[in-house]
Amino acid sequence: MSVPDESARIALGALPGDVRVLVWDGVGEIPPHGHEIEFFVGRFNTRPRRETLESLSRLQVVQLVSAGVEPWLSVVPKSALLCNGRGVHGGSTAELAVGGMIAMLRGIVPFAMAQRAHRWEQRFTEGLDGRRVLVIGAGDIGTRIATAVRVFGANVTLVARRSRPGVRDVSELRQLLPSQDVVALAVPHTDDTHHLVDAEFLAALRDDALVVNVSRGGVVDTEALVTEVLDQRIRAFLDVTDPEPLPAGHPLWDAPNVLITPHVGTIRGWEERAYRLVREQILRLRDKEELVNIVGERY
Amino acid sequence: MSVPDESARIALGALPGDVRVLVWDGVGEIPPHGHEIEFFVGRFNTRPRRETLESLSRLQVVQLVSAGVEPWLSVVPKSALLCNGRGVHGGSTAELAVGGMIAMLRGIVPFAMAQRAHRWEQRFTEGLDGRRVLVIGAGDIGTRIATAVRVFGANVTLVARRSRPGVRDVSELRQLLPSQDVVALAVPHTDDTHHLVDAEFLAALRDDALVVNVSRGGVVDTEALVTEVLDQRIRAFLDVTDPEPLPAGHPLWDAPNVLITPHVGTIRGWEERAYRLVREQILRLRDKEELVNIVGERY
Ligand SMILES: NC(=O)c1ccc[n+]([C@@H]2O[C@H](COP(=O)([O-])OP(=O)(O)OC[C@H]3O[C@@H](n4cnc5c(N)ncnc54)[C@H](OP(=O)(O)O)[C@@H]3O)[C@@H](O)[C@H]2O)c1
Ligand SMILES: NC(=O)c1ccc[n+]([C@@H]2O[C@H](COP(=O)([O-])OP(=O)(O)OC[C@H]3O[C@@H](n4cnc5c(N)ncnc54)[C@H](OP(=O)(O)O)[C@@H]3O)[C@@H](O)[C@H]2O)c1
Repeated sequence: MSVPDESARIALGALPGDVRVLVWDGVGEIPPHGHEIEFFVGRFNTRPRRETLESLSRLQVVQLVSAGVEPWLSVVPKSALLCNGRGVHGGSTAELAVGGMIAMLRGIVPFAMAQRAHRWEQRFTEGLDGRRVLVIGAGDIGTRIATAVRVFGANVTLVARRSRPGVRDVSELRQLLPSQDVVALAVPHTDDTHHLVDAEFLAALRDDALVVNVSRGGVVDTEALVTEVLDQRIRAFLDVTDPEPLPAGHPLWDAPNVLITPHVGTIRGWEERAYRLVREQILRLRDKEELVNIVGERY
Repeated sequence: MSVPDESARIALGALPGDVRVLVWDGVGEIPPHGHEIEFFVGRFNTRPRRETLESLSRLQVVQLVSAGVEPWLSVVPKSALLCNGRGVHGGSTAELAVGGMIAMLRGIVPFAMAQRAHRWEQRFTEGLDGRRVLVIGAGDIGTRIATAVRVFGANVTLVARRSRPGVRDVSELRQLLPSQDVVALAVPHTDDTHHLVDAEFLAALRDDALVVNVSRGGVVDTEALVTEVLDQRIRAFLDVTDPEPLPAGHPLWDAPNVLITPHVGTIRGWEERAYRLVREQILRLRDKEELVNIVGERY
């Protein structure tokens, strides 16, 4: 097997003696013994060329430690399984979504500003109780967001590709929009979800609705969002943007009622969780058990 | 019955014809028909004198719309029931506690500052996953905090006066402190909880532990807390302080790693929920059913 860097090798810890570990990120020349790699661990932002992976004749698994996989779909050979890091970043990303949502509704940043000025300015804000929250995407992140905000009295609707108990079909989306106070995005960025939140989507929302995006910047049509937030029609909490990083001078930075964090859904210590998953996957492969987090037909 | 002001009367809405409503906050002269009051609704910060309430010979119930009752204990005659507003502010107060906790751990205020400077400064922070969170008080607010932070992977210990499944006895508190990353206070302010968080309590916590107080300022010994936060030993999110309002120039305002909100656990629209409860209580009294939220022996 291979891991992309030395810190990954450390996080992986000791493995059974019959598993040999090579440090290689898949870019450039194939190193000695590289042709023996059966299990390749990739770094999200360091993508090998398709020909490189195709030339690894024993390759069986490409394992990512991120939930997102989109740019990898075109480089993994059909003969290998692509697995993602579902579950590694989900709790912390849902935590950030809920934290940003509450910060927006409860005025935490304005209160922090008043604190700097030594001003005790008591004013009751809005909150989640009785509010309608639409969560688009009912996977690891979406279901956690839903469970958490329900604790505070929100009326939650979950939407995904396939309807099931407690989850509505994405085809119902347009009807659901006008009644929502908050819309949270927890879908992968795919052809289907690209610019899902466009001018028409935003126009369907009520005044002052809050859009929360912790998925990928490209799920939102940034230009359409900018228009609505500059009009003070819509509010937003964005952990992901398009483009990313957001360049200085971009109109989103100073837009009223917009809170931005710099793609930090992940938290410190994520490597430990990630490489616990990787270790389990390697042992599954060795023991001919079924792997988890197979991306396959899901995207 | 009586309600403290005109807006309360409006929030109460229409009542059955046999219930007569008087607007009076219990301060000053007893108004005409005041002596017929059986059900008195009090405003938390406007306390009648004990003699006034004692002179209402038909008084059966004193209903508050706050969860806190402490200063009322001494003015309500023994012959009357004291009921509080448990459940009215619990969801929104737990929401604020969790929002403030996440804001502290995930650096939401510093990221908002970087946003003002148009700076995309990606750095991974800590988060709740795998962290130990101690919630002191296992009532409406405490249990909601516990449920929410568990969604994000926290290991939660709940503590209350009486141990029960899932709740430890407060006598175990001192042993529990050294292993906690976050301590959240969700107890009423009583003789027993006054300065519960004192110098000794804080000294037992590990470096960098986060103290969250959404209960009452007096549960914390402010002087001891100031010492620890100025030392950068302890961090805090405080929605309640002692004194309150916190005066300009108080050392807490500028202490590092302290976030303060001005006692805003309540949210807009709380009157609707509060007077729904009051209406139900009045009908219970009329129909000789048992009332809910009776404070009685609980404090
Ligand atoms: N901000 C960050 O730092 C950060 C961190 C981690 C992940 N993320 C992003 O968050 C995304 C979601 O993560 P996750 O772990 O929750 O993924 P997940 O468990 O795979 O769930 C994805 C959900 O999206 C739904 N979905 C997919 N395509 C859809 C479409 N066209 N319309 C409606 N729903 C659709 C899926 O529907 P079905 O259930 O019907 O299949 C599923 O419920 C990741 O792909 C990644 O891009 C961001
Ligand atoms: N920040 C705000 O704006 C705001 C808003 C609403 C309320 N509050 C404050 O929050 C407090 C709690 O509200 P709540 O609705 O959660 O009250 P609650 O449902 O009555 O719960 C109180 C909890 O505190 C526990 N407790 C009482 N005395 C204790 C002691 N000496 N040691 C350990 N635990 C003790 C109780 O234990 P048992 O379960 O064993 O009885 C109970 O679990 C209120 O009293 C109020 O002061 C603040």
